[in-house]
Amino acid sequence: MAVEQLKLQLLKIHQNKIFEFIVISIIIFSALVTGAKTYDIGSTMANVVAWLDMLITVFFLIEILIRLSSEPRFFDFFKKGWNIFDFIIVTASLLPVDGNDTVLLARLLRIFRVLRLVSVIPELRILIGALIKAMPRMGYIVLLMFIIFYIYAAIGSFMFENINPVLWGNISISMLTLFRVATFEDWTDVMYETMAEYPLSWIFYLSFIFLTAFVFLNMMIGVILDVMQREHEEYYRESGEGESAEVHWIKEHTEQMEQRLDRIESLLLENVKQNVAPK
Amino acid sequence: MAVEQLKLQLLKIHQNKIFEFIVISIIIFSALVTGAKTYDIGSTMANVVAWLDMLITVFFLIEILIRLSSEPRFFDFFKKGWNIFDFIIVTASLLPVDGNDTVLLARLLRIFRVLRLVSVIPELRILIGALIKAMPRMGYIVLLMFIIFYIYAAIGSFMFENINPVLWGNISISMLTLFRVATFEDWTDVMYETMAEYPLSWIFYLSFIFLTAFVFLNMMIGVILDVMQREHEEYYRESGEGESAEVHWIKEHTEQMEQRLDRIESLLLENVKQNVAPK
Amino acid sequence: MAVEQLKLQLLKIHQNKIFEFIVISIIIFSALVTGAKTYDIGSTMANVVAWLDMLITVFFLIEILIRLSSEPRFFDFFKKGWNIFDFIIVTASLLPVDGNDTVLLARLLRIFRVLRLVSVIPELRILIGALIKAMPRMGYIVLLMFIIFYIYAAIGSFMFENINPVLWGNISISMLTLFRVATFEDWTDVMYETMAEYPLSWIFYLSFIFLTAFVFLNMMIGVILDVMQREHEEYYRESGEGESAEVHWIKEHTEQMEQRLDRIESLLLENVKQNVAPK
Amino acid sequence: MAVEQLKLQLLKIHQNKIFEFIVISIIIFSALVTGAKTYDIGSTMANVVAWLDMLITVFFLIEILIRLSSEPRFFDFFKKGWNIFDFIIVTASLLPVDGNDTVLLARLLRIFRVLRLVSVIPELRILIGALIKAMPRMGYIVLLMFIIFYIYAAIGSFMFENINPVLWGNISISMLTLFRVATFEDWTDVMYETMAEYPLSWIFYLSFIFLTAFVFLNMMIGVILDVMQREHEEYYRESGEGESAEVHWIKEHTEQMEQRLDRIESLLLENVKQNVAPK
Repeated sequence: MAVEQLKLQLLKIHQNKIFEFIVISIIIFSALVTGAKTYDIGSTMANVVAWLDMLITVFFLIEILIRLSSEPRFFDFFKKGWNIFDFIIVTASLLPVDGNDTVLLARLLRIFRVLRLVSVIPELRILIGALIKAMPRMGYIVLLMFIIFYIYAAIGSFMFENINPVLWGNISISMLTLFRVATFEDWTDVMYETMAEYPLSWIFYLSFIFLTAFVFLNMMIGVILDVMQREHEEYYRESGEGESAEVHWIKEHTEQMEQRLDRIESLLLENVKQNVAPK
Repeated sequence: MAVEQLKLQLLKIHQNKIFEFIVISIIIFSALVTGAKTYDIGSTMANVVAWLDMLITVFFLIEILIRLSSEPRFFDFFKKGWNIFDFIIVTASLLPVDGNDTVLLARLLRIFRVLRLVSVIPELRILIGALIKAMPRMGYIVLLMFIIFYIYAAIGSFMFENINPVLWGNISISMLTLFRVATFEDWTDVMYETMAEYPLSWIFYLSFIFLTAFVFLNMMIGVILDVMQREHEEYYRESGEGESAEVHWIKEHTEQMEQRLDRIESLLLENVKQNVAPK
Repeated sequence: MAVEQLKLQLLKIHQNKIFEFIVISIIIFSALVTGAKTYDIGSTMANVVAWLDMLITVFFLIEILIRLSSEPRFFDFFKKGWNIFDFIIVTASLLPVDGNDTVLLARLLRIFRVLRLVSVIPELRILIGALIKAMPRMGYIVLLMFIIFYIYAAIGSFMFENINPVLWGNISISMLTLFRVATFEDWTDVMYETMAEYPLSWIFYLSFIFLTAFVFLNMMIGVILDVMQREHEEYYRESGEGESAEVHWIKEHTEQMEQRLDRIESLLLENVKQNVAPK
Repeated sequence: MAVEQLKLQLLKIHQNKIFEFIVISIIIFSALVTGAKTYDIGSTMANVVAWLDMLITVFFLIEILIRLSSEPRFFDFFKKGWNIFDFIIVTASLLPVDGNDTVLLARLLRIFRVLRLVSVIPELRILIGALIKAMPRMGYIVLLMFIIFYIYAAIGSFMFENINPVLWGNISISMLTLFRVATFEDWTDVMYETMAEYPLSWIFYLSFIFLTAFVFLNMMIGVILDVMQREHEEYYRESGEGESAEVHWIKEHTEQMEQRLDRIESLLLENVKQNVAPK
């Protein structure tokens, strides 16, 4: 009984608006502390920051323990993706720090605590959710783009390696160079260099730019359509209002009207028969 | 009574098309005067410009006073956002100028008089209104983008500070560098520098470019959908025409037809009964 | 009669598919001749090109005279925008050439003959038509963008003139510099220069980039919506098929059904009365 | 009979999921082998790679022979575009290699084997299909863009040739320079150079950027609309669900209801006559 009551108490704390506000504040404060560490601060300040960091770690640990304990069953907590997300971020910052190398690692792990803002603010969770849902459709476009990059990189590597091995040394360096061309970053310098030996190599660059631009455009359209359809369907399902819902309503009622007209017609036919028969 | 008549007179002036045209002309002229001040002009010209500037200030003051006085009640004027906007812009250019520092400030304040074009031309007011309405939805996307920037800036600052403190000195400098990378401005120079020490740091840059491009894309789609839905709903509400309105009309009339069919059926049933009963 | 017959003959030539094909070929050939002039060609070749150019001019003159004469009334020709467009382009290349300066002018005027492709190929005419229709809506967005540019240019000119007069010398130079910043072309170089004196000037650049990006985005959306609605309406008007047309059909027929149900109900009521009354 | 049975056997192999998986694996492995060739590998490794390459070639040859033989009629295989695509890619890599020049050619031909991924994975085939369908509409926009480029290149070549023949030497070099300007790559360097002689030449560049941006925007919208309409129509045709299908359903049933009401009305009229007549 005492355990049950404690759980209820913990759930109350967890669902409290003020507690939520405190969590958000601590996350932002934690981000600022992380930011402060990148400045050249005196050793006293560095000590304060280290202490603050530890306090934040402890706070996050307590918060996650409260949320863990407030669940009816222990493992229910891990059924929600965002809970696992929070758990990993919090436990990652508990890793012991001793050598110089791990200091950097520990620092990097602590940066990701800012990501907890996403799991706390519902609107951001929706945004990330939409991005994740759009992933599968994007996957194939990324694959197609990768194939285009791979072919052009292989061609570039075979043709231009002797001209500039820094840019076209092997297929992976070539892909990086092509990504640079796709972002239009000093791409003419790359082109003019190879055009000195192969005057027609502008075809290579222009066709590549056209292909990546086309594929990227289609990518964008794919996402737009996907998000639009999903949003539309959701609106339709939730509200029951709007044109789609009204059309559906009309369809169902047209069916009912047809059945009614069926009955009316048969009644009338009967009526006519009755009128005719007895005479 | 005299006050009432004066107010009516002022309202007439204020709503006069010619007066409106004069106001627009003066605003454009004021913009040109502001522009003229940026050229190296002789002292005689500078004097003329200063006189013109004062005349424009006086004109704007009179115009705002006319509009203020023509309101039935004094404070009604401040109920419209655009009136407050105009009032602040006009009064700001009344600030006294004495030292050299305030000259610059006064000049800057006078530049914003061009913005009065927005409050005078209705089409621009609608455009700005649409932008303001789209803000809340954009807010969360900007926040998400900021989180991404913050995390990458922190990582960059920890990892690359020793390589180039000018670009990665602290978290704010790093964020500026990352914004530069997001606009593709000489981003490969930044990348090649860090790749000399960390050969795998291209993952850092490419993942950042993908994330910002994705979020930015979603941002665009969000705005497109928002504006589309709003425009559509407005059109639907205002015109009463179009597909949506017709579907709504059909729905309502289908309901009426059903009621009518109800009545017809009951009439027929009664009819049948009557035909059957008396015999 | 002879004139009438000649006109008919000319109309036949003008509407002939082969004639149209010849016109397109001559336009493309004319473009190639124009292109050839930009190469360093020998004097014999230059003579040939000059002769070809004259022949093309004569051909275009004859073609326009045929089209002019084939019209029932002389001035009907000038009622279509594209005819005026063709007439101006053809007559412009008739200007006499004597001095060295006019050679350049004559050459430039002859380049625009390539534009006749647009007036000859219907699909291109539609594309240009769509662009022209979208102009008014774009006008206000361009105006808003211009205001933003003007204000930032004035601020930039007042603040940064002493730092770099080549970039910020006066308001027109500043606007060009800002356009460069808007295209992300070496914009960080511009920013870092002013940040040396005003460390907070990054706010100036970042806010400018955000504003222009936002306005530009809205611009795009405006055009998209405009073109979409127009295309949709046109499709609706022309085909009579599709959802909109069907909904409209249903609406009209629902009205007819209601009138019919009205008649049925009144017939039934009469029937009931008749059944009741005589008994 | 034996041939028939063999064909059936081959068809079974060809449609086997495991066989498909092996084909995809071999294609990816082939891509990796191609990539490996771009690295500086020892002669032993080069030998291994050459052997692997030959094995892959043989595998692809066998695979295409299986698919060819499994067809009921020999030439049915060449009726599908993707089969021809596969056939060309596979046979191209069979070309004999002897001299040094053909080594490069053979290598290039082998790169395209990665493209077989597109013909094997259905989702990529759909993507490419959509791109090909969007081509005709894009064609005219590309033509319009080409005309704009051509006119500006001719003007640029006539005006700026003396300033910088490397950038404006003839019309084809000028077009490449303009493409560079359209991608915003160091375009201000190009502009500032010509502005030194012609101070108004910024009009040339800015108008060009506006035109290409406008045309490109329309291009994008064209593709978006095209893809949207096609996707929508396909969905409509396939599923029979959704708003469009429901509206169509309602239309058809409204027609039926009208016919039924026709019958009811005539029955009633008859009824009334019968009631009236005998009395």
